[in-house]
Amino acid sequence: MSRTSSPLGLHRVLEPPGVLPQAAWRLDPSPAIAPDEVRVRVDRLNLDAASYRQLRETYAGDPDKIRAAVLDIIATRGKMQNPVTNSGGMLTGTIEESGPQSPLGLKPGQRIATLVSLTLTPLTITDGLRSWDGKSEQVPCEGHAILFARSIAAVLPEDLPVPLSLAVMDVCGAPALTSRIVKEGAVVAVIGAAGKSGSLSAAAARQAGAARVIGVVPTEAEAHLLRQPPLADVVVIADARDPVTLATKVEAAGGPADVTVVCVDVPGCEGGAILSTKQGGTVIFFSMATNFAAAALGAEGVAADVTMLVGNGYVPGHADLALGLIRGVPAVRNLFERRVAQ
Amino acid sequence: MSRTSSPLGLHRVLEPPGVLPQAAWRLDPSPAIAPDEVRVRVDRLNLDAASYRQLRETYAGDPDKIRAAVLDIIATRGKMQNPVTNSGGMLTGTIEESGPQSPLGLKPGQRIATLVSLTLTPLTITDGLRSWDGKSEQVPCEGHAILFARSIAAVLPEDLPVPLSLAVMDVCGAPALTSRIVKEGAVVAVIGAAGKSGSLSAAAARQAGAARVIGVVPTEAEAHLLRQPPLADVVVIADARDPVTLATKVEAAGGPADVTVVCVDVPGCEGGAILSTKQGGTVIFFSMATNFAAAALGAEGVAADVTMLVGNGYVPGHADLALGLIRGVPAVRNLFERRVAQ
Repeated sequence: MSRTSSPLGLHRVLEPPGVLPQAAWRLDPSPAIAPDEVRVRVDRLNLDAASYRQLRETYAGDPDKIRAAVLDIIATRGKMQNPVTNSGGMLTGTIEESGPQSPLGLKPGQRIATLVSLTLTPLTITDGLRSWDGKSEQVPCEGHAILFARSIAAVLPEDLPVPLSLAVMDVCGAPALTSRIVKEGAVVAVIGAAGKSGSLSAAAARQAGAARVIGVVPTEAEAHLLRQPPLADVVVIADARDPVTLATKVEAAGGPADVTVVCVDVPGCEGGAILSTKQGGTVIFFSMATNFAAAALGAEGVAADVTMLVGNGYVPGHADLALGLIRGVPAVRNLFERRVAQ
Repeated sequence: MSRTSSPLGLHRVLEPPGVLPQAAWRLDPSPAIAPDEVRVRVDRLNLDAASYRQLRETYAGDPDKIRAAVLDIIATRGKMQNPVTNSGGMLTGTIEESGPQSPLGLKPGQRIATLVSLTLTPLTITDGLRSWDGKSEQVPCEGHAILFARSIAAVLPEDLPVPLSLAVMDVCGAPALTSRIVKEGAVVAVIGAAGKSGSLSAAAARQAGAARVIGVVPTEAEAHLLRQPPLADVVVIADARDPVTLATKVEAAGGPADVTVVCVDVPGCEGGAILSTKQGGTVIFFSMATNFAAAALGAEGVAADVTMLVGNGYVPGHADLALGLIRGVPAVRNLFERRVAQ
């Protein structure tokens, strides 16, 4: 690259000019790196759950159409950012070349996972995704990706299987922020507690001293996952899109909550989360399906004095905290292993 | 009404059944009230800024088309909720009938403003909006609206002109939350500081003890509004949709900020707000144009450890705090009077 590089990756933005890579329609994924960049040989993408769900539903689960759609997005945009959900995911790969001015400290040959979103990572796929069955968000592939000076990547731990580490790192912001917000003795409701970010958040809440963790799931099958072994003190089966029913059930389970953590990837859960939370409490929205206006107006509409947080995917130390929970809490590891195997 | 009423207004929801009024496509605005409801004779709507802007741009400012669009929304949905922006606004009127079980303490003949959104307020318009010129978001009209037991309404103060009180109450959540978050000695950046919620937030930040208030505006004309008399310590002219330029200018003005308050009603300001905020700082998003995923992924993408708050329109005491700023800070009152007169 002859252009001056930017730690934020501005030099890779093709259109519209001047925006950050995440906001760009199209990035330049060419393999030649600037002195502060790193090139990764990609072996796996882990698509954001909301993105994969949208693709699966749009193409009625047809693997060929889902594959073609993902290939088309990457070829068109130079990154894997679903234009409907605007979300991406993450990747793993091996460091191929590390620029002499890169501050990331990565060396050729190391296996890493990116902890910044695919929505801002220049990416090229070279194998037509022929090894992906299109049936899950884990996408084995060949190609390359570029890391900027201000990207975040973690070397994959050797004591855990790669698909497991990848799945954990993809959602590691949720338990880290939950851990920061939950105080000793709090009542915590986790909506979508049998999911990946949900189970880690439930475990993080307990580790942070929650007096009661209420796990909300949509079905008896999900409830079973939460109970064997137990990850929540009480399990509530409810449709989180039905605010009144949800709030009634959470209250009966020991709520309303001091902290409600929203981890389900379906739209329409804002009102229920707000109604399930105590006056003066906090709602943390981790779902990318969260609608900003629905949250803001929903709280106002029921005169709810709750603090509402946009779940930030980056909290310092997030990967280590989440991997620690996987190693230390058998119930979470068990649940993750089942999810990853699915 | 023969049906059992709910404090949240669930009995007024026609479709889809079982959702909260804000999430409903259609409400029942019939005038007969339940024992815990209140009927208001409406005299003015104050449309949400993002909603009015969308209507004005869609119909190229044509007053007849804008009027017809608003009438059509209200007739179709039984409430004024713009289906594109999903936002509403507020109204003023006179109490016509107060049910014997209403907890709101309102009496027939009192002039009030609603502090819950029009997105959940059953509404009928009876005058075809013939008194509205379509040229501003303040809509004189005739009709009626319904308040539920858990609605919020404030009796209009007698010492301030009604359009001024209305404009203040519409955005009073912003200064109240800003006041709660800003600590003594903080550097505060207000994006859109010459607007209504922005100017009140700037004044609230100063009252809360901010050491430096940086006011960000898009044009020299807006900068002039902020300087006469001064509402910010430094005025920065920048396009808030250009993250890199914005962050550079805020830094030169004494930033990055401990607290950044986003008060502009245009999309695409998430990245700039995040980049203008210190590690460990807080961004408060008050704009209904905020995109949840852009905020969440934007922070992650630049490894920003910032707390991001969804601006809740309800904070206890919010109307009193904002009216107090209007009475006590001549610069804010001056700016509001110009905006309302426009």
